[in-house]
Amino acid sequence: MEFLTGTVKKEYLEIGEIQSGDYEGKSVRVRGAVHAIRDMGEVAFILLRKQDGLVQCIYEEGKSHFSLQDLREGDTVEAEGICKKDSRSPLGFELRLGFVKILSKAAEPLPLKINRGKLNTSLEAKLNNRAVSLRNLRERAVFRIQEGITRGFRDFLYSQGFTEIHTPKLGARSAEGGANLFKLEYFHQPAVLQQSPQFYKQMMVGVFDRVFETAPVFRAEKHSTRRHLNEYTSLDLEMGYIDDFTEIMDMETGFLQYAGKLLEREYAPELALLEIRLPRTERIPKVRFDEAKRLAAEKYGRPFRNPFDLEPEEEALIGRYFQEEYDSDFVFVTHYPSQKRPFYAMDDPADPSFTLSFDLLFRGLEVTTGGQRIQDYQMLLEKIEKRGMETDGMEHYLAAFRYGMPPHGGLGIGLERLTMQLIGADNVREAALFPRDLGRLEP
Amino acid sequence: MEFLTGTVKKEYLEIGEIQSGDYEGKSVRVRGAVHAIRDMGEVAFILLRKQDGLVQCIYEEGKSHFSLQDLREGDTVEAEGICKKDSRSPLGFELRLGFVKILSKAAEPLPLKINRGKLNTSLEAKLNNRAVSLRNLRERAVFRIQEGITRGFRDFLYSQGFTEIHTPKLGARSAEGGANLFKLEYFHQPAVLQQSPQFYKQMMVGVFDRVFETAPVFRAEKHSTRRHLNEYTSLDLEMGYIDDFTEIMDMETGFLQYAGKLLEREYAPELALLEIRLPRTERIPKVRFDEAKRLAAEKYGRPFRNPFDLEPEEEALIGRYFQEEYDSDFVFVTHYPSQKRPFYAMDDPADPSFTLSFDLLFRGLEVTTGGQRIQDYQMLLEKIEKRGMETDGMEHYLAAFRYGMPPHGGLGIGLERLTMQLIGADNVREAALFPRDLGRLEP
Repeated sequence: MEFLTGTVKKEYLEIGEIQSGDYEGKSVRVRGAVHAIRDMGEVAFILLRKQDGLVQCIYEEGKSHFSLQDLREGDTVEAEGICKKDSRSPLGFELRLGFVKILSKAAEPLPLKINRGKLNTSLEAKLNNRAVSLRNLRERAVFRIQEGITRGFRDFLYSQGFTEIHTPKLGARSAEGGANLFKLEYFHQPAVLQQSPQFYKQMMVGVFDRVFETAPVFRAEKHSTRRHLNEYTSLDLEMGYIDDFTEIMDMETGFLQYAGKLLEREYAPELALLEIRLPRTERIPKVRFDEAKRLAAEKYGRPFRNPFDLEPEEEALIGRYFQEEYDSDFVFVTHYPSQKRPFYAMDDPADPSFTLSFDLLFRGLEVTTGGQRIQDYQMLLEKIEKRGMETDGMEHYLAAFRYGMPPHGGLGIGLERLTMQLIGADNVREAALFPRDLGRLEP
Repeated sequence: MEFLTGTVKKEYLEIGEIQSGDYEGKSVRVRGAVHAIRDMGEVAFILLRKQDGLVQCIYEEGKSHFSLQDLREGDTVEAEGICKKDSRSPLGFELRLGFVKILSKAAEPLPLKINRGKLNTSLEAKLNNRAVSLRNLRERAVFRIQEGITRGFRDFLYSQGFTEIHTPKLGARSAEGGANLFKLEYFHQPAVLQQSPQFYKQMMVGVFDRVFETAPVFRAEKHSTRRHLNEYTSLDLEMGYIDDFTEIMDMETGFLQYAGKLLEREYAPELALLEIRLPRTERIPKVRFDEAKRLAAEKYGRPFRNPFDLEPEEEALIGRYFQEEYDSDFVFVTHYPSQKRPFYAMDDPADPSFTLSFDLLFRGLEVTTGGQRIQDYQMLLEKIEKRGMETDGMEHYLAAFRYGMPPHGGLGIGLERLTMQLIGADNVREAALFPRDLGRLEP
């Protein structure tokens, strides 16, 4: 009988091993995709793309034992050569090629020039050729950064006693109700795709005290803007036994601090490649909704029309205000009007026309919505009645409250929006591997 | 201006702090849910449920300054009392109560007896009262174990150079095609819910070399069995530059070893509570599909009807065989017949009627399907043609191959099934917070 033991002896080097210098002067093997070929006549530079960078290989006529003509960009190969120190090479070392073994061939020349630094093409062309455009080093670095954010979110919350949950995306009804729901038939029953794990994460606070989820959400919003996606990844948390809704904002601040350090430590090459300036997170200002409106209106001389909501332009001005006045990329805007928040939001006892809620703006764009929720069963029923809503379909949600729930609150972060602002993109589609919008269901 | 700094000073203790002994003899405060009240007359035991266990609190008539009658199971409270060593208490310490402040009230008595060890009710009743049944310590421990598995999967793969991806669940078409798809209308276009991230993770191997995803998948299978869910969490990985499909099995073995150690280290209380015997993973036998069938048929005298597939009963017998003969809870069954595997599976060059693929059986149940994929564009087109399939709708998938893809393979693990087998449940619904099946869309 044969057995698997969990170990594979690898016959080829990774980039870290090449950079270590341990292989200087030795014959080594490297695998990767042919990213670029620069043919200078008797000499050619062949750049191999690996998951964490490029390996520069040198073809020399007469010394390399293969035909340069057999290689094409897009092929994947195993290259064998002598590892030599070279300060002009991106790794500090290069490979003087002896042999190249082709592992797989590209059938055609690539439709995009992916190997010239920044990909010089339209967003549409990038998205229409996603399997190729992401092979550009800068394009793919965006999603390494995105990994770092998600990883930071989870690791920080594990350290804070949160439990990870997986809640269903198919349901008979949805948390917030109303429009914006994708509907489908589920074995002859009407069903919807969840636009948020809101109800489920609240119910689970009664079980685990603190929970989080990182999962897709679905919104059938008929918006076609630079900041909307119809499917996105939501980083959700919900925490019990809070005294004040500022604790939720402090938890998010702690996450941002943690993620920043993780990115600096583990994703430095990607930060450098994308020239990302990490935001300062030691202290994040918070300001009331009405006060934020007033401050920005006064400073920038723009009268505000809607007293109950922030328009995108207002968000941008408030962001600018706190950038200029407090040198802060972030600002928590608190106490949103009750009529613009869902029924489960906790109204401010000091003035019930406002809620104990907040948005986080990052460089002028909302990336988080959160707040304290109602935990009292009767209060919840009264709010539902006051809004003229029905409790039909909410029986399971309400049961959690009927049998006792701690004071709690939470938030949801749009992963793609947070990534977009961090990398300085002007369209959220740049921060989604395969974005879904009004017109795009493929690839 | 006020600022958030990411720190919250907590005025109440967590279980680890109580257990440390640092507070012996001191007045402390603890928050939690009233899990059980055992009234003995002049003395009462009040068990507070926190995310990581129970705190035993003692009410003494005349010494405790509150009325026991005001408390009900399900209430959440802040209890203040003297921390005393007591070997009979689950933590080794208990609280002699002075005051209790009620944070929130349960409106009604709980519909299930959640505080008597094992929850003695039907699966249906548990699922119909999910917000309450999960408050049982054993029920909720299942999902802490599940967290450990998912966390182990991700952390191990990060350490192996994998990049985490988020692929869309809404699409115009699906990877494997055919039936079993939930269909919906997406802004006047027909759309489906993805039954697997297969196409996307393969495309991303051309970008990141190694990728993984932990996300929901949707299968409109009309099965009502103890092992099927219509929505489940799939742990997917895909890895490039492999020499042999055994490397994929070694990667899974490495994950199982890593996850086992993580569970032992971080989830010991839950393992103990559920009396889980962790499986041995130092070496996992692998056996060919046809050989496995033969071995089990011979030993257990059961003739096999279908030469192309394993029936559930056969899986159980093969599992039993390797348990008895090799003391192994796991067995990799390899070389499934080509006609039962999807078009992208790599056929065995030695005999193309079989594939370089595998399933992992855990205690007699399939928990993983994986294998090597075709990386060559022409070979892929030929296989599609040979099967009489159309390439319509596969343009983006095929483009990845047209422009070069490394040799690669991967696998998908059913998280709920793996959890189910680990905890020894006889129904996969026990291992889903909110299972979705033919008849269940709520809660």
